Amino acid sequence: MKQQMEIISIGNELLIGKTLNTNAHWLAKRSTTFGMTAKRITVVSDDVNEIANAVCEALNRKTKFIITTGGLGPTFDDKTLEGIAKALNRKLEVNGKALKMVREKYETYFKEGKMERVELTPARVKMATLPEGAEPLPNPVGTAPGVIIDVEGTGLIALPGVPPEMEAIFEESVAPLLKKEAGELTFFETSMYADGIMESALAPLIDKTMHDNQYVYVKSHPKGEERKPHIEIHFSTTVKSSKTAKNRLGKAIIELSELVQKDGGKIKPKKKK
Amino acid sequence: MKQQMEIISIGNELLIGKTLNTNAHWLAKRSTTFGMTAKRITVVSDDVNEIANAVCEALNRKTKFIITTGGLGPTFDDKTLEGIAKALNRKLEVNGKALKMVREKYETYFKEGKMERVELTPARVKMATLPEGAEPLPNPVGTAPGVIIDVEGTGLIALPGVPPEMEAIFEESVAPLLKKEAGELTFFETSMYADGIMESALAPLIDKTMHDNQYVYVKSHPKGEERKPHIEIHFSTTVKSSKTAKNRLGKAIIELSELVQKDGGKIKPKKKK
Repeated sequence: MKQQMEIISIGNELLIGKTLNTNAHWLAKRSTTFGMTAKRITVVSDDVNEIANAVCEALNRKTKFIITTGGLGPTFDDKTLEGIAKALNRKLEVNGKALKMVREKYETYFKEGKMERVELTPARVKMATLPEGAEPLPNPVGTAPGVIIDVEGTGLIALPGVPPEMEAIFEESVAPLLKKEAGELTFFETSMYADGIMESALAPLIDKTMHDNQYVYVKSHPKGEERKPHIEIHFSTTVKSSKTAKNRLGKAIIELSELVQKDGGKIKPKKKK
Repeated sequence: MKQQMEIISIGNELLIGKTLNTNAHWLAKRSTTFGMTAKRITVVSDDVNEIANAVCEALNRKTKFIITTGGLGPTFDDKTLEGIAKALNRKLEVNGKALKMVREKYETYFKEGKMERVELTPARVKMATLPEGAEPLPNPVGTAPGVIIDVEGTGLIALPGVPPEMEAIFEESVAPLLKKEAGELTFFETSMYADGIMESALAPLIDKTMHDNQYVYVKSHPKGEERKPHIEIHFSTTVKSSKTAKNRLGKAIIELSELVQKDGGKIKPKKKK
């Protein structure tokens, strides 16, 4: 059984199509490599109720982890922690450990001579104001700490929306937790390309291959048009040993390649990047 | 009151981080320009129950439109219409109009000399098998038609996942519906850049500007680090007349620019693309 997680991306910029959601893509990819399964990605606006609803719904689906991105900064529309507090029916309070992290960050910036000494204004204290029972996660590259809260066995994790900050907190504090939960499972994948066979003709061949290779997932991704078909065929499996993965994927690839060629299609190996 | 929509993106490739969700981004951006508001984006896997749940939840939130992408093709894992049928508790049936579209597509490919004449195999008939009461939407560039179903006033629209097909059906059949609903409202936006002022120092200045300019939404997007701040400030408003939009945005930009400069920050105009 693979461990499951959900991602909640918070930010109006994602919903007006200003910003491409590369954070969810990065988190899904990284987590998948550990053998985790992202079950759902939800994008909501910078609105306390929208955030609270999305968090409640995800909690009700009982995944092992929920990771939010965005909305941890100092501005009025950084509302993630308020939304989470509402979802959990907990108070927001200045967290001593988080405040220490924020204060030390500004001290460091000052000592590096990169800025004047600043006061802990309300906007800055806001970044250390967390739901009751939350633990801050150090931010190696920015100011706002990440946050983790255990909610009846679900790890609810809030990361900033600025990609380098999100990625740094994830690698330092979140990846080890995910890896531990996922155990020794790893996700293996490869692709090949089929030319000259329509996706509608490929469909029954994939059915047969998946039927004969029950641990391998095969999915076609048309890259050309139906009338001039160029199709990526993606093979994946989640398993402990890379040798087993290689055997499984290899067997499926050989079977499907033969079927495709018998139907007049041409197989090309994966393009080198 | 702005009309609202939701987007449901369907596909394992989005949840394993193989494919970046450019479709949701494109749809959100295009729809926003018509004055529509994307309230939520949900990404689920190629699983009938996951799709059905996401559709039910979106229907319960009563937006004017729900647009799904992906899962309309001929392969076993194209399960969107099955998921929608389950959500609506309707049967799937071969739709005469859709079957005609699919058949004519293959005839066209044949007549263009681009492929042999093909039979309507089960995989091909699948693309014309729609929930009861659905209407097919012509696909100008591919084979699988789009689908629209009126569900008690919500337009539930299913588009293919291949970007050029999704975009072509959207422009031809969906954009006119969205524009009509949105009325004469249009979304206007612009950005400026502030250097040398921390986001935490900018926060109260944005608060003041938004308080004084109630129809303008201002959001900061840090592009540098807190210690060497380079911040995009995005201004937007949704309104009928471009003159009003210009006045509103101009007034807010001037006010915030002055506040930033008073605090020692530097303002730079939006970079030309």
